[in-house]
Amino acid sequence: MNIDMIEAAAARAQGHVRRTPLLHSPLLDEVAGRRVLVKAECLQHTGSFKFRGAWAALSALPKGTGVIAFSSGNHAQGVALAARMHGVPAMIVMPADAPAMKIANTRAYGAEVVLYDRTSESREEIGDRLATEHGLTMIPPYDEPQVIAGQGTCGLEIAQQAAALGVTEADVIACCGGGGLTSGIALALDGSKLRVRPAEPQGFDDMARSLLAGERLGNGPAQSICDAIVTPMPGALTFPILQRLAGPGLVVSDDEVLQAMALAFRHLKIVIEPGGAVALAAGLFRQTDNETVIVTASGGNVDPDMFVRALAAR
Amino acid sequence: MNIDMIEAAAARAQGHVRRTPLLHSPLLDEVAGRRVLVKAECLQHTGSFKFRGAWAALSALPKGTGVIAFSSGNHAQGVALAARMHGVPAMIVMPADAPAMKIANTRAYGAEVVLYDRTSESREEIGDRLATEHGLTMIPPYDEPQVIAGQGTCGLEIAQQAAALGVTEADVIACCGGGGLTSGIALALDGSKLRVRPAEPQGFDDMARSLLAGERLGNGPAQSICDAIVTPMPGALTFPILQRLAGPGLVVSDDEVLQAMALAFRHLKIVIEPGGAVALAAGLFRQTDNETVIVTASGGNVDPDMFVRALAAR
Repeated sequence: MNIDMIEAAAARAQGHVRRTPLLHSPLLDEVAGRRVLVKAECLQHTGSFKFRGAWAALSALPKGTGVIAFSSGNHAQGVALAARMHGVPAMIVMPADAPAMKIANTRAYGAEVVLYDRTSESREEIGDRLATEHGLTMIPPYDEPQVIAGQGTCGLEIAQQAAALGVTEADVIACCGGGGLTSGIALALDGSKLRVRPAEPQGFDDMARSLLAGERLGNGPAQSICDAIVTPMPGALTFPILQRLAGPGLVVSDDEVLQAMALAFRHLKIVIEPGGAVALAAGLFRQTDNETVIVTASGGNVDPDMFVRALAAR
Repeated sequence: MNIDMIEAAAARAQGHVRRTPLLHSPLLDEVAGRRVLVKAECLQHTGSFKFRGAWAALSALPKGTGVIAFSSGNHAQGVALAARMHGVPAMIVMPADAPAMKIANTRAYGAEVVLYDRTSESREEIGDRLATEHGLTMIPPYDEPQVIAGQGTCGLEIAQQAAALGVTEADVIACCGGGGLTSGIALALDGSKLRVRPAEPQGFDDMARSLLAGERLGNGPAQSICDAIVTPMPGALTFPILQRLAGPGLVVSDDEVLQAMALAFRHLKIVIEPGGAVALAAGLFRQTDNETVIVTASGGNVDPDMFVRALAAR
């Protein structure tokens, strides 16, 4: 994994992946007590950064290759739309309790959705079996070089957009599940004074604890509203990248996540889902080293009920 | 008024006014039955296109000139922030029943807010008196050449962004109150095959009726949730521009506006206020001549209660 792969992914993405804006608001800065720049990946196609990695992976395959993926919803939508745009079939294995909007949208993009029971079945086993039966290529959600390279294109844009605002030194806080986005951005920013820090929800802070321990650790039993990033443990590929390049992890509560969603509604006019708001919550409510923080607003695929809950949390 | 003034305003805006994205979603296109491109002006500084006109007007004044404006809220915020960025004082006359967020934000940008009673007092009289007393220059909300030129910069961006997507022929539907945005865009697109059409809420369709009648008509007594664009009649400057350049007006109901807000939440992940959603509602629910429509999402300054109402409307 190196910067060349990310630049190659960016070249293949040209005209297909959206260059999302880096937003800011003087009133949001007042809440944070410092400058907060928000990379609005919720405005990416399919409503999350996952489309970047999906596009990178699909566009690196031989023409006509059908694909399969497992995902709680954002990777699902990214792969579904990227497959449709490549004119190839996609099958997506999703938990039956994923947010309704994510399941409906994945189907609407034309993918065949296979639901499974998160408590009794293994998505990996189902995925492997279906891949073999149907001759489909698996696109893993984060632990795959092309997927990481695709997410890294977000980091290239952050560096360019921050420089345009005169920002060359900052903490770059990324919402972290398996670590695909965080490690991709870290690789893209390697050598600059923009230092990546992973943000996670309470109870699913496996990356923060793993970075402290120097080895990959899992999570205990826990609940979180951040469905997009409640992954079991850091990836085998992503963890060493973050060990080398990232600062310590930041951990936020569900209440702080809901407040961050409400503040983004009020001051930035963007819709962020819980898992996509942990970085903003960390940027608003945690101290870091620099006067400027750049945060990823990683996704916006939130059901109306949860968004109403966030608006009431203010 | 001509294209040179708009290009001059765009040059003065460089680095200060945000170039907002032109968003689209295949799932939103399915709802509409055609291609819908959304100019996300809710992502502009202060949450609405009004910052463009305010910046254009302020940047054309002699250095150090203090300003005054009357506005239900979006022009208020635009002038307040533009004045702060120019380092000059701003006084804003607002109705006491304006959305709470708009009043609070205008104050937070550093303007002095003077509230008045919409039913018993004249904002023009109050504004004129305060302007004289304090030696401030009035920045009218729409019927002023520099303000129209500033809003026209939105039209320049639409033309460039549409061309980048291969779109050279379309209906361009703009949310229309006094007609500043609509006439600015119309001037910017003059000579192209992108034809402007004003969109208004039921009961405040003065521009649509005026265009049909060939003279400026007012509105009867009516209510609408679209607080940003419930203006009394077309502007003296804006009306002749639209008579010359715009197609017939489109009129939508409050229910259609709420549905458009919910669809923008779901498919575009942006927050639009009622008055900023009339163009999207018209693009989704009214027939026009072209297969592609471009709509302005003019503003996003909506109180949480109203947004919850929109989400429930789906």
